[in-house]
Amino acid sequence: MNRWQETEFHDQFYMTMHSPRGANASFALGAKDDGGGFLHDTATIPEQEIFIGVKKGNKITCLPFFKQADSNGEELYDQGAEAKKYENLLLKYDPSVVSRKLGFATDSWTAPGMKLEIATPVDGVPEPGKATAAEIKKAIVPAIPVKLTIDNRDGSETAHGIFGLKDLRGFYSAADRSPSELLGIITADGYGFAMDAAKYEGKVTMVGDFGPKELFSRVRPELYRLAPMGGFIVEVPPGETVTVDFVLGWYDDGFVTRGERTCKNYYTNYFSSINEVFQYAVGITDELWAEARNHDRRLEESDLNEEQQFLLAQAMHCYYASTMLFDDGGRARWVVNEGTYMMMNTFDLSVDHLFYETKYNPWAVKNQLDTYVDEYSYYDTVHSMDDPSISYPGGIAFTHDQGVFNTFSPAGYSAYELTNKDGCLSYMSHEELTNWILSAAVYFHAFGDKEWLERRKGVIADCLYSLLNRDHPDPSQRDGIMDFDSDRCGVSAEITTYDSLDASLGQSRRNLYLAVKCWASYLAIERLLTSVDQPIYAAAVREAKEAAMICAKTIVSYYDEQLGYIPALLDGKDRSAIIPAIEGLVYPDQFGMSEALAYEGEYGFFIHTLKKHFTGVFKPELCQFSDNGWRLSATSINSWMSKIFVCQYVARNILGIDFGDDQIVHDRAHAHWWKVPCHKCPGIDQIFWGYEFGRGFHYPRAITAILWLN
Amino acid sequence: MNRWQETEFHDQFYMTMHSPRGANASFALGAKDDGGGFLHDTATIPEQEIFIGVKKGNKITCLPFFKQADSNGEELYDQGAEAKKYENLLLKYDPSVVSRKLGFATDSWTAPGMKLEIATPVDGVPEPGKATAAEIKKAIVPAIPVKLTIDNRDGSETAHGIFGLKDLRGFYSAADRSPSELLGIITADGYGFAMDAAKYEGKVTMVGDFGPKELFSRVRPELYRLAPMGGFIVEVPPGETVTVDFVLGWYDDGFVTRGERTCKNYYTNYFSSINEVFQYAVGITDELWAEARNHDRRLEESDLNEEQQFLLAQAMHCYYASTMLFDDGGRARWVVNEGTYMMMNTFDLSVDHLFYETKYNPWAVKNQLDTYVDEYSYYDTVHSMDDPSISYPGGIAFTHDQGVFNTFSPAGYSAYELTNKDGCLSYMSHEELTNWILSAAVYFHAFGDKEWLERRKGVIADCLYSLLNRDHPDPSQRDGIMDFDSDRCGVSAEITTYDSLDASLGQSRRNLYLAVKCWASYLAIERLLTSVDQPIYAAAVREAKEAAMICAKTIVSYYDEQLGYIPALLDGKDRSAIIPAIEGLVYPDQFGMSEALAYEGEYGFFIHTLKKHFTGVFKPELCQFSDNGWRLSATSINSWMSKIFVCQYVARNILGIDFGDDQIVHDRAHAHWWKVPCHKCPGIDQIFWGYEFGRGFHYPRAITAILWLN
Repeated sequence: MNRWQETEFHDQFYMTMHSPRGANASFALGAKDDGGGFLHDTATIPEQEIFIGVKKGNKITCLPFFKQADSNGEELYDQGAEAKKYENLLLKYDPSVVSRKLGFATDSWTAPGMKLEIATPVDGVPEPGKATAAEIKKAIVPAIPVKLTIDNRDGSETAHGIFGLKDLRGFYSAADRSPSELLGIITADGYGFAMDAAKYEGKVTMVGDFGPKELFSRVRPELYRLAPMGGFIVEVPPGETVTVDFVLGWYDDGFVTRGERTCKNYYTNYFSSINEVFQYAVGITDELWAEARNHDRRLEESDLNEEQQFLLAQAMHCYYASTMLFDDGGRARWVVNEGTYMMMNTFDLSVDHLFYETKYNPWAVKNQLDTYVDEYSYYDTVHSMDDPSISYPGGIAFTHDQGVFNTFSPAGYSAYELTNKDGCLSYMSHEELTNWILSAAVYFHAFGDKEWLERRKGVIADCLYSLLNRDHPDPSQRDGIMDFDSDRCGVSAEITTYDSLDASLGQSRRNLYLAVKCWASYLAIERLLTSVDQPIYAAAVREAKEAAMICAKTIVSYYDEQLGYIPALLDGKDRSAIIPAIEGLVYPDQFGMSEALAYEGEYGFFIHTLKKHFTGVFKPELCQFSDNGWRLSATSINSWMSKIFVCQYVARNILGIDFGDDQIVHDRAHAHWWKVPCHKCPGIDQIFWGYEFGRGFHYPRAITAILWLN
Repeated sequence: MNRWQETEFHDQFYMTMHSPRGANASFALGAKDDGGGFLHDTATIPEQEIFIGVKKGNKITCLPFFKQADSNGEELYDQGAEAKKYENLLLKYDPSVVSRKLGFATDSWTAPGMKLEIATPVDGVPEPGKATAAEIKKAIVPAIPVKLTIDNRDGSETAHGIFGLKDLRGFYSAADRSPSELLGIITADGYGFAMDAAKYEGKVTMVGDFGPKELFSRVRPELYRLAPMGGFIVEVPPGETVTVDFVLGWYDDGFVTRGERTCKNYYTNYFSSINEVFQYAVGITDELWAEARNHDRRLEESDLNEEQQFLLAQAMHCYYASTMLFDDGGRARWVVNEGTYMMMNTFDLSVDHLFYETKYNPWAVKNQLDTYVDEYSYYDTVHSMDDPSISYPGGIAFTHDQGVFNTFSPAGYSAYELTNKDGCLSYMSHEELTNWILSAAVYFHAFGDKEWLERRKGVIADCLYSLLNRDHPDPSQRDGIMDFDSDRCGVSAEITTYDSLDASLGQSRRNLYLAVKCWASYLAIERLLTSVDQPIYAAAVREAKEAAMICAKTIVSYYDEQLGYIPALLDGKDRSAIIPAIEGLVYPDQFGMSEALAYEGEYGFFIHTLKKHFTGVFKPELCQFSDNGWRLSATSINSWMSKIFVCQYVARNILGIDFGDDQIVHDRAHAHWWKVPCHKCPGIDQIFWGYEFGRGFHYPRAITAILWLN
């Protein structure tokens, strides 16, 4: 029987990732009958079977994070052996007796006789080179704390708690090099778990075996190194409750990137081995738990409803799984992987992580902006689709990403963008150009970093002229909207971050979604260059301001009274309806130009029209799915969670729309997508009418939900 | 249709491994519709689809090393895309037009319009610290040469050759750091391929794409880094034949072992990057090809029949795939993995690799003997199964292995052996004790290394008293045969290398197979300590000599006239028939005591009896399978290729048995096992009535076939 055949669906069994910061590492758990386990430079959620539970009498009852109850693994190894009878039974808790609570920072599982809790970070990483070594060390220790509590108060004989994972390989004892400090197991793949030897020596035993049944059938359990399961067991005398406080840890001491740049993990500056990681982490678990409970409380006490709290908590858990903090020849370098795709610092994701990062990791935004300018920008020429053979001046643009699978692509080139490629995988020059501008403005607004602005003002001016050239080479023909594609596309055309959507959101040229981002970009440049306050930029400020107004007017001019919305392509023919027309409004809100968003302000006509647009498209027959989920484009079944979250924020907080009782109906639909059909894909972004494709996909981008918490 | 449903079976489609020396690296290819590709610290044969072929017109025809003809991969990535039509067709050569020749060192594939050749080493690695740097460098360069020839002599338009592999990740161009020297692709997993830029610039293009169809549909192929397939294409003008000479290479610069010892790859002392590996290897390909052709010729000109030549060639190809040469704190350390199981220097495999290594890698034998003494020996106590609670003095013994998955186990302990474990996975103390003694004697005989003998004579004496104690603590009750199990077994008993066989070969105590190895071990000690020639060892020499004679007499006394053979367990009850009774005779032959093997010598009665034993069991109803394969134990369907090869050598070369026309009938059965039912498991050792279990298993041990070549 698989979960779809069960009469009652227990929606707490969704996969969640538990991740330290900047280590390309996480621990996944939560889907029923499915495993999970350690990720370490791993693209998809692994399938390590996990055994966490309690043995009372001859029954070993575990949380259902493994495939088959009552199986044993030894025979698979010993090919000649006959099926063996064990006196012990391996059972799964019935789903109905398991309860789960996912907090902002913690994940707790309770079942009769046991409790499992895992805590993960919510705060960011302070700026390397500015924060103290002690602050950095604590923020980037590649370890997270876990508590396993076994309750034997009603028992009349000794119970045993078990924590074990299968598919570990090449494991050895943490005690080998820290004999009186640590009990733990480390594997050949650079991860493991450990606890304080002083506290648990004699009570907890590190074990290696084929599975829980084999383990408990031994005369005396051993750390059997050949077997696939590593873990520990803890003795719990009758009448007692025992909590084992331990940590999961990861370590890779070599060069971990290749291609254009060869970097090490930044944490290697603070920890010289996984044993050091363990010893440090074991010493601060109380502190980590206290912080985690505070974060939990903050979310619980927010005005978010229960579904929104879940969505944000799950998004938070998935973000750090994709983060990497490198030592790049002595300097810190921040990279966020594109989840399972593992493209590095995909710029159209960075612009979404921005909302979290400016609040928690601000230096990381600057860091990405700088590497994009210094390494992953280019100056191109552009063409009109009317005659692609004629090149016109283009200007600065930025690549889609900085490489893939920890392999940096050559400077000026992404891993993703392909010349002469129709649709998905083509260039995103214009989209990424707006992303740099918007990120720069949000960063500057949050920190007023004048030194950075002074250093980058020339780039900002370059961005302005690049935007203008992509509108039209002839100033008199400009309407504020992109009409010229980069020559890097070859015979194909530019696309947007909605790369696998139809033209309503997938095509860049004259796209409404991108047009509103252009408007925001012109405002951003106006704001930034005004702050530079130097005479030579006065003309640029004026041009940016004018372009923003022209852009807004052009967009409004396409409002179709009959349709009741602005069609997605501003070409006079298209009739598609999209929600992300309003997405770009989030940026002025985040870079401090709320006056541009006021219904009574200079752009009031524009904001009013976008509100009309939103109410015009946000209808069951257009931009809502039959399950009440938000449908970004009425002509596609493909919707993006991260972008839904941004647009919800814009609709509520900027356009002032009150969804009333419907709010939670939509939220419940989105929570359902993640908890039920996509339960094996934590944080997955692209959802096809409520479904994912394939198991084990994960994604960091939905952290945009952090906007709700302001 | 899968291959089992084909009406005609083409038996050239078996997987073979192509491996440099000591790099834990290989390249697998050969099974139809199955892929293969790069192994690098990898347990099983990977499933990277391989595209090697030629495009003429709109037809891309490749050797059948990929799953589906006419498939394309792009849509899998671009989730929104509709199925795309390509003008090109991806086809597989019909099996009937493909011909293959596996030589001692080369593997050649010919199909209409193309030829693929790969060369691998046969020679050993000279002794680090004694051979010159130039000699070592050439022997351990982690690269192998490949030739792809495209014949377009009958063409009227340009043809394109292609070499490509899927499931590569994070690739970048070798030219990035060697712009005018190399064309090639390197991946995040530390392997790739490269060629001389001066020779191929402008003719060969490095490409990355989703597959051959997508690649050839581009306006201009690119090295597209996000796509899963990396490779190259070569232009071949009409009327011409072009050969691309290139190399496959591997590199890992970090620490590659963990646990008890932390080592680097020894090649990092000679090559500082994979680019250096490539540049060096590209410069010596002509030399490597010349050597490979010489090795091929040597095998072809030997007196081995065609099937034997295949078996030895295939075994040779699989051996180096499992080898690792480490830099262990400055000293060279040789490790052979137990194939897919990846246990390190499994001693009961080392004693089989011995026959190859003493001839080609002699220092590696010494190296393993020394690490076994210094790190993986132990001194135990023993017990009789009559009363396991009473401990008697045991003596020195050796562990089963030195760790698993590049994780060294704690000194004195293997990864494999488990206390209180019945059958498979129990201790092999006695077996490994004989293995150390026999390896020492073979090594000393081959090299007369007096310095080593002087240093290890005490260990050899310890071995003698350990053997004697395991026979019986009371000298008067000794019969030359093991009766006492190590206390390390706990409540269980010792096993032999035939661990998953029934008691006929699996049980150590009073086992005929092990008894003959005891006899050989006593002779070995006699031989070694006689060579020490120091008065204090005179008694030991005498004791060893006496024990050998007692042992031989005991064994002969169990010959059962009625059965016509010696039962496998010398307990007066067992009636099992086994071939490996004769296995131990190979050692005196290899350590220079042929006088002990002479029918007319001191042990003539013993040798005569073992010959009678062999002819007594080697009958269709006992130790032959129904397909004419050798059946090591009449009571099991589990047979070991490596051991069949040893026993064949003993039967022919030591016992002087002439199999006449039957010889090739047996050889053909064994070749069939590897070529047909086990075609996806190169070098697989354990075969169950002609079949393997599972795909992608490989093993180094069958190199025992090298005995035939003397």
